[in-house]
Amino acid sequence: MSGWIAVAGIGPGDAALITPEVADALAEASDIVGYLPYVARIPARDGLTLHASDNRAELERAHHALTMAAEGRRVVVVSSGDPGVFAMAAAVFEALEAGPTAWRRLDIRVLPGITAMLAASARAGAPLGHDFCAINLSDNLKPWALIEKRLRLAAEADFAMAFYNPRSKARPEGFGRALEVLRAACGEDRPILFARAVCTPDEVLRVVSLGEATPDMADMRTMVIVGSSQTRLIVRPGAPILYTPRSAS
Amino acid sequence: MSGWIAVAGIGPGDAALITPEVADALAEASDIVGYLPYVARIPARDGLTLHASDNRAELERAHHALTMAAEGRRVVVVSSGDPGVFAMAAAVFEALEAGPTAWRRLDIRVLPGITAMLAASARAGAPLGHDFCAINLSDNLKPWALIEKRLRLAAEADFAMAFYNPRSKARPEGFGRALEVLRAACGEDRPILFARAVCTPDEVLRVVSLGEATPDMADMRTMVIVGSSQTRLIVRPGAPILYTPRSAS
Repeated sequence: MSGWIAVAGIGPGDAALITPEVADALAEASDIVGYLPYVARIPARDGLTLHASDNRAELERAHHALTMAAEGRRVVVVSSGDPGVFAMAAAVFEALEAGPTAWRRLDIRVLPGITAMLAASARAGAPLGHDFCAINLSDNLKPWALIEKRLRLAAEADFAMAFYNPRSKARPEGFGRALEVLRAACGEDRPILFARAVCTPDEVLRVVSLGEATPDMADMRTMVIVGSSQTRLIVRPGAPILYTPRSAS
Repeated sequence: MSGWIAVAGIGPGDAALITPEVADALAEASDIVGYLPYVARIPARDGLTLHASDNRAELERAHHALTMAAEGRRVVVVSSGDPGVFAMAAAVFEALEAGPTAWRRLDIRVLPGITAMLAASARAGAPLGHDFCAINLSDNLKPWALIEKRLRLAAEADFAMAFYNPRSKARPEGFGRALEVLRAACGEDRPILFARAVCTPDEVLRVVSLGEATPDMADMRTMVIVGSSQTRLIVRPGAPILYTPRSAS
């Protein structure tokens, strides 16, 4: 078998955030597999087949990619951000584990990328500069009660928190409940960052207090970061800087 | 003022993991500031001054970088990995907040990079594929009791956990205590990844159970990742794959 599969992170949007390692894999690929808007970011060229699929089709997409690699093709599965953070790498390994034993001999690599929380953090300052957690707020694949439990424990641990998939049209209610849990646990004054479409031409950053935050400030293109009790805001001309110092008591 | 300061992530070691955005900043810089082994990764060239300093000197280094930028120089502060994760961005903002008000008008940017936990995760599979937390195990800047509290709460939340700075010559004892807390909270069978010198020629990956883990498996060049209760190991020819599925119950 001379085929291979690489699960590659193409970052949050700006081509200047794609690593040379990922760019090389894209240049060597025969097939690109992924969710439609991510595949749309890959320029067409001779010898390259683009396979775009719908959002909810992660496992089928992973199975298709593994099948092609086993047939000898050079397959890159593209993920926004980093493939290992709420993205395609886990789906590919789920499909690999459930698939034919021969797939375990495949040449398979995960190529890291700039994940949305670190891009958003960089644009706002350094809100994740001390201990933090990352939570997917979608309850498509886990019960809502587990999300609330994690929010309460993360607040008790005084982590800064980064939230992926805070709100979608199919799940309009959850994020409002998450804000209520956070206000009860962290108080009204805790800063919260809404970073929409970060590192794209549509980017909008907004920092408010938990007391001011409303559910409509987030959608599926928004990364949300809540500070720890130590997180600070530096006011200055232009956008303020949100950061969490290195020390804690 | 035509000077600027960029706090840039140069990734875990491999030049193929440095983003074009960071490469451009390095090419435009007049001065590079950072911890000695990171500055040593930047090639010398005419017009570029390298300022290497010792590990513990973060705040002085940040102050120096801000001072030079305010004098009109083009300064890149280099961090290993991502500058916003247990690295120089927070130190620069601490120095900025404590410094002259004029510094708040500086052109200051944070340029994200591939942080060690995501590089290690990619090399091992996708152990951070679901909700997770990142904890600095050094008690230089926080009390050890807070670290233990966070470990217990993170285990109760069933996060996968990534540990930075697990062990150093100056702090040989803490990591053994952390392993005891984790064994008590997560059981002996939970997988733990030791990823040493990830994405460098010295890279060594090892996955064992918490019951088998010993303190000497980690040093300051080691990234440690503990799985959640859902994390799985796929055995195959060569290195096994460690991953956390997308769903949880």
